[in-house]
Amino acid sequence: MADLISPQVLKGFRDSLPQQEIPKKSLMTRLESVFESFGFVPIDTPVLEYTEVLLGKGGGETDKQVYRFTDHGDRDVSMRFDLTVPFARFMAAHAAELVLPFKRYHMAKVWRGENTQRGRYREFVQCDFDIVGADTSAADFEILLMMTRSMDVLVGGKATIRLSHRGIFNQFLGSLGAADQSVPVLRAVDKLAKIGPGEVKKLLLESVDASGADKILAFIGAQGDFSSVLDQLEMLSGGEGEGSRRLRELHTLAVEMGIEGRFVLDPSITRGLDYYTGIVYETFLDALPGLGSVMSGGRYNNLAALYTKQELPGVGASVGLDRLLAGLEELGLLQGSAGKSDVLVLATQGSAGAQKLAQELRTAGLNAEVYLADKKLAQQYKFAEAKGIRFVAQITDAGVQYKDTATGEVKSALSAEEFTSWVRSARG
Amino acid sequence: MADLISPQVLKGFRDSLPQQEIPKKSLMTRLESVFESFGFVPIDTPVLEYTEVLLGKGGGETDKQVYRFTDHGDRDVSMRFDLTVPFARFMAAHAAELVLPFKRYHMAKVWRGENTQRGRYREFVQCDFDIVGADTSAADFEILLMMTRSMDVLVGGKATIRLSHRGIFNQFLGSLGAADQSVPVLRAVDKLAKIGPGEVKKLLLESVDASGADKILAFIGAQGDFSSVLDQLEMLSGGEGEGSRRLRELHTLAVEMGIEGRFVLDPSITRGLDYYTGIVYETFLDALPGLGSVMSGGRYNNLAALYTKQELPGVGASVGLDRLLAGLEELGLLQGSAGKSDVLVLATQGSAGAQKLAQELRTAGLNAEVYLADKKLAQQYKFAEAKGIRFVAQITDAGVQYKDTATGEVKSALSAEEFTSWVRSARG
Repeated sequence: MADLISPQVLKGFRDSLPQQEIPKKSLMTRLESVFESFGFVPIDTPVLEYTEVLLGKGGGETDKQVYRFTDHGDRDVSMRFDLTVPFARFMAAHAAELVLPFKRYHMAKVWRGENTQRGRYREFVQCDFDIVGADTSAADFEILLMMTRSMDVLVGGKATIRLSHRGIFNQFLGSLGAADQSVPVLRAVDKLAKIGPGEVKKLLLESVDASGADKILAFIGAQGDFSSVLDQLEMLSGGEGEGSRRLRELHTLAVEMGIEGRFVLDPSITRGLDYYTGIVYETFLDALPGLGSVMSGGRYNNLAALYTKQELPGVGASVGLDRLLAGLEELGLLQGSAGKSDVLVLATQGSAGAQKLAQELRTAGLNAEVYLADKKLAQQYKFAEAKGIRFVAQITDAGVQYKDTATGEVKSALSAEEFTSWVRSARG
Repeated sequence: MADLISPQVLKGFRDSLPQQEIPKKSLMTRLESVFESFGFVPIDTPVLEYTEVLLGKGGGETDKQVYRFTDHGDRDVSMRFDLTVPFARFMAAHAAELVLPFKRYHMAKVWRGENTQRGRYREFVQCDFDIVGADTSAADFEILLMMTRSMDVLVGGKATIRLSHRGIFNQFLGSLGAADQSVPVLRAVDKLAKIGPGEVKKLLLESVDASGADKILAFIGAQGDFSSVLDQLEMLSGGEGEGSRRLRELHTLAVEMGIEGRFVLDPSITRGLDYYTGIVYETFLDALPGLGSVMSGGRYNNLAALYTKQELPGVGASVGLDRLLAGLEELGLLQGSAGKSDVLVLATQGSAGAQKLAQELRTAGLNAEVYLADKKLAQQYKFAEAKGIRFVAQITDAGVQYKDTATGEVKSALSAEEFTSWVRSARG
């Protein structure tokens, strides 16, 4: 006999067992329903792309993490490391075929060869939704509204969206004479929640003087209700500008819609990347603020500038699916378990009786599973218990006996519809 | 300005636009509902695995097509080329945590660097469902029943499953004294539909003598109803055996279930691979027999022998998703289009009115899309037309006006529920 090969997966990768896959799929389905109710449509792109398409002509910090190799045709190819770059390439390739504004969502795996010691995985699912082709407050607001609707569906609305605007921040930096320092300043400010104002100040002093650093800390520390923070920010940044006007419009829309309580204007939210140009936002579960943002994004002026001269302004958000799953699990809000069967029909080997009964129950709307091995009744009951199947049906000479294993109650002479009602009422 | 990068995808890869992605997702969802109604649960495995895990210690024809490279940690890794090998590895790794018989489905992408001149893609979705841990006719029959149910849902049952049994074929080869020639003989027989009996005979003569080749052609050419073909096969293979007994049991179950008309016993079905050990089957759409099999599989004695000494007998099938999609499209049975919105709410810039109305309609159960750019009415109507959105809602000083663009009918003073009923009755 040949040596066995060890059935192990690569470091940073993992199998998804039913008890993980079912809740993940349920979460994705619930998000899809929200997205589709707003008219968003799904797309997909290849996992492998030309390296130049994904990484551009330059190099960067992310590049080292990319799974990159030479394919059979000697092409330099890479596995996608996010869904944003492929979407930009997609929009440049298909803008003429698509109707703008284009609203799409995309849920798919991405790969990054990250350091796994920080508990990161090298393969994970991203979930992005964006509107491309409309630089309006109506588009910004729709993304924010979809985020609140998603949180309604997932955690009964118990989540807060913290938002800010890159334009107002840049205007403020300009008033300090530090417009050219926006990248290091944004990087420093983005660390506020993690390292605190003292350490942020040290970082800021690498880019601006002490007075500038204090003013930046005052700016990002502004607190109060939306309107009063907005007033402070306008004052600190030298008066009304495009950024503060857009924020005011969004606040008015939220008030008209009666959802202004879901938003906090938080100037410390900057989303590190230089990529964003308009509003930026993060979402925190009220019960688990330390979990970090579960849904983040913003507005970017020109999605596909690497590939096309056509201007494609966009606004969107990305769901941190793994983090959200962990949060929902901690809150006991995860839906789905190791199985979805309502009833186990016990085996009657050599006859189609069990499948016939199961088929009637399926037609009545239940998930009905048949026990398929040749085992004793006790083992079949154990199977139901292990899989969390509450009801058991057994074909006997006296007809079908149905048992609720949770209560021990047994009934017979039921129609498929009567049994289905029983299952549904037991489910509560 | 920097040179633009061409937004092209790799040869053999493709983007999935909404008009492709929506029907594909709808097909997958409908299959999932069937699988779940039988108690099957979803799993997932990593896209990247150790090359040794996927390819074993030997080499083979498939190997050249595998996307294989060295990762950041100097590991020899490959992208999965099917879902069967990862499933075998998964079962060996997790058998102790799972309850047997284990019924799972898996829908995911796989990659093969195939010759694209034959119209093949290098990235495609596979969809497998299997039962592991029960070598019973009940398990075989359940897979066959799920295949007929899938075809009920997708094409109103207008499909035929052609099946055979490896055991009976091997018994027959043994009676010819050609048991050791089973691999080349199976490969030759598998080509019958493509190249015809004359060419198959030439191939067979490389492995057996002329009398043997004629007997093999007679065996695979047996025709008639299930029972009479089975009688012929038993006679040609020297009497009843395990294979013919299992086929007889399956036929009895099909008759009891009233679905025997969905199956044809076809000894020319062998499924080329040496991998199968029991029943084998292929599925053909009655209206498109030339399309080829859209759902195929069989029973295998020992799924995970490469990785574990535990015996894990299995039976399952794989859906040819791209082929099935092409078939459904040709038959006009594809569900879904470029969008799923029921109604477009026209823009009212600077006010939340449109989103408020849309939100009421979403709550009433519709997919309601808001027009988000700052454009004239004519352009907004064009948007609805291009996206196939039949109803349009416009907020006017006199209240909301709803229009059915298919009939031109306009109504006002409707509640969200009244409008929803109108949309549903128009949908028919």
